[in-house]
Amino acid sequence: MQFADRLNNVETSAIRELFKLLGKPGIISFAGGFPDSAMFDVEGIREASNQALTEEPGAALQYGATEGYQPLREQLAAFMASKGAKDLAPENLIVTTGSQQALDLLGKTLISPGDKVIVEGPTFLATIQCFRLYGAELISAPIDGNGVKTDELEKLIAEHKPKFVYLIPTFGNPSGAMLSLERRKAVLEMAVRHQTLIVEDDPYGDLYFGEAPPPSLLNLSASVPGSRELLAHCGSMSKVLSPGLRVGWMIAPAELLAKATMCKQFSDAHTSTFAQATAAQYLKAGRMPATLAKVRKVYAERAQAMGDALRKELGEAIDFVQPQGGLFVWARLTGAGGKVADGNVLAKRAIEKGVAFVPGTPFFCANPDNATLRLSFATADVEKIREGVARLGQAV
Amino acid sequence: MQFADRLNNVETSAIRELFKLLGKPGIISFAGGFPDSAMFDVEGIREASNQALTEEPGAALQYGATEGYQPLREQLAAFMASKGAKDLAPENLIVTTGSQQALDLLGKTLISPGDKVIVEGPTFLATIQCFRLYGAELISAPIDGNGVKTDELEKLIAEHKPKFVYLIPTFGNPSGAMLSLERRKAVLEMAVRHQTLIVEDDPYGDLYFGEAPPPSLLNLSASVPGSRELLAHCGSMSKVLSPGLRVGWMIAPAELLAKATMCKQFSDAHTSTFAQATAAQYLKAGRMPATLAKVRKVYAERAQAMGDALRKELGEAIDFVQPQGGLFVWARLTGAGGKVADGNVLAKRAIEKGVAFVPGTPFFCANPDNATLRLSFATADVEKIREGVARLGQAV
Repeated sequence: MQFADRLNNVETSAIRELFKLLGKPGIISFAGGFPDSAMFDVEGIREASNQALTEEPGAALQYGATEGYQPLREQLAAFMASKGAKDLAPENLIVTTGSQQALDLLGKTLISPGDKVIVEGPTFLATIQCFRLYGAELISAPIDGNGVKTDELEKLIAEHKPKFVYLIPTFGNPSGAMLSLERRKAVLEMAVRHQTLIVEDDPYGDLYFGEAPPPSLLNLSASVPGSRELLAHCGSMSKVLSPGLRVGWMIAPAELLAKATMCKQFSDAHTSTFAQATAAQYLKAGRMPATLAKVRKVYAERAQAMGDALRKELGEAIDFVQPQGGLFVWARLTGAGGKVADGNVLAKRAIEKGVAFVPGTPFFCANPDNATLRLSFATADVEKIREGVARLGQAV
Repeated sequence: MQFADRLNNVETSAIRELFKLLGKPGIISFAGGFPDSAMFDVEGIREASNQALTEEPGAALQYGATEGYQPLREQLAAFMASKGAKDLAPENLIVTTGSQQALDLLGKTLISPGDKVIVEGPTFLATIQCFRLYGAELISAPIDGNGVKTDELEKLIAEHKPKFVYLIPTFGNPSGAMLSLERRKAVLEMAVRHQTLIVEDDPYGDLYFGEAPPPSLLNLSASVPGSRELLAHCGSMSKVLSPGLRVGWMIAPAELLAKATMCKQFSDAHTSTFAQATAAQYLKAGRMPATLAKVRKVYAERAQAMGDALRKELGEAIDFVQPQGGLFVWARLTGAGGKVADGNVLAKRAIEKGVAFVPGTPFFCANPDNATLRLSFATADVEKIREGVARLGQAV
């Protein structure tokens, strides 16, 4: 069978083989990129879906507008307002089938084969593949503990004139890094200076452990003239409420939102109205603040436990910035004392010792740093985290 | 903003303007392509979703496999077996976000810009736009009351060597036509002869009014050697249970299914597990046969009422085949007695008289027959159908 040329631009995931090993009995996994199922507010979601079927059974089960179910768009605008985006109307966002679909729609709407897109090195794996399927040539912008290095980013923008720049400014996957306020402003200013679209992917911003992170690019754009018209913002219910609902959203300039809506019409017609009506009822019931407080507390404890254990068990063999939110520790093997310095090598040894994580290499679209690794602290409890990191210490 | 080149291949829907007029008070609409919300088994779906949250809350709300939620794949394989596809394993299908996504994945997986795809003239509007977004050049194969004319189709295949042929063999949208058994066999045989992939889109096959239609291409492929390896079959819960769940599926040769799964991973990761687990519980509860019996009975009455009224009110001014299933009457204005002979003209006049339908023109990817129209009998009750057709009689 002759497949489309665009498939030549992607490879099946390098970490798929690793994931097959996760079924091995007794493995402690830091490999996943998902929230802990035990955090799900099952009864709250049950009530919300029952309420949706009671109040509006026709709408919840019928075809709906491609832009999204209007009561959910209203609730999401209010949710965003509660987080500081005061000037959003429901019409400024569309509902997407998870934020993965927002990325897909950005690719479909904007990327012609050969177009350049700048992403962080490292960045979300599925973003790399998603954009490459539309023929994008990806450019890697380096990061440090404060997120993307904006000086370097501006040089790359000037050199490559990308279709857009894709960033996860807050507790990025895999980097866990939090872009500093200063750099956030710099990003918006350079967007205006170079008239370059910025995509802010923000699935983790609500998962902070101490102080709230600096305002999102979306919120800051209100104070950088011209930047809102050059900004797309992707949000998601997946990390805070439930990935299984597949409810995400995208805020973007009107023209881009209209084109993305047209593309969505032919991608899946609309996001499940059953899931949308459930999410709308959940938000309307006012349950989100308590849910967020709960997940923040639990993940904060786990992040702390993982950081402490890594320092204790691996010492100078590993280097990382203690995460202030999100789901991940992004670490670098130092090779100190002749210990393993390659994440891919360590991943294989770790499996033998009964602990799994994802090596950092595949998260880079170019020039991978093979010493890196991503450790999720979200799904194992504190005791398992300690035991898993102890095994990692043996493996290293 | 500079959008992707692929957007130049589609136009915003010609019927969108028409749909804006549907809000006019008192309009009777035959324009929609959706089932009647009053048919939804709300209590059955409520029980199913509650059951899913009770039995498997983690799975129903967590990320899931891109291929689909395994218990749903099993239920769908059993559902297909109950309809005559005896040899399907759950692994032979993937779950899609409505069958619209199956079309999108076929486009993404198979179509390179400039590739040719043969579709029926007329065919489903969103198929035309979906494939064009991937750069397909569409070829129109003529139909009659028995579906696509297979002699003509084979000539077109030989001439254009298409990437694939897309057909809605059973109660097609908009044609309502049922491809005859003889022609079904001919399609499979020519697929093997020309080694051409056939896509069978089958959202309406369960909505028959009298005798069951001939076996699907999928079922028949068991008796045409080599044809199964050249067949993709798309199914959907939307017309029989609920469009709002966005649960469809695709059966295809293993290699194609694997590529489509990879593409789906970057389109929306997976279909809502909440919706999938709900659909799985619904099928498991054994409610589908009664639901199907109910919708068949109601739509049969409405189809009969519409056919009778059209003959009575429009007489020789209209020509159509009485549908044996599905949601649509596909008709042709004859111009007899100096009556209106253009569906686009009639659509405007009809709105003024208080009745709406979709003219046939936009359903053709080439050489439109402007005398045609699509009338849905699904959403208006028998009394409204009679009144609406009487208004149509005045408009003509």
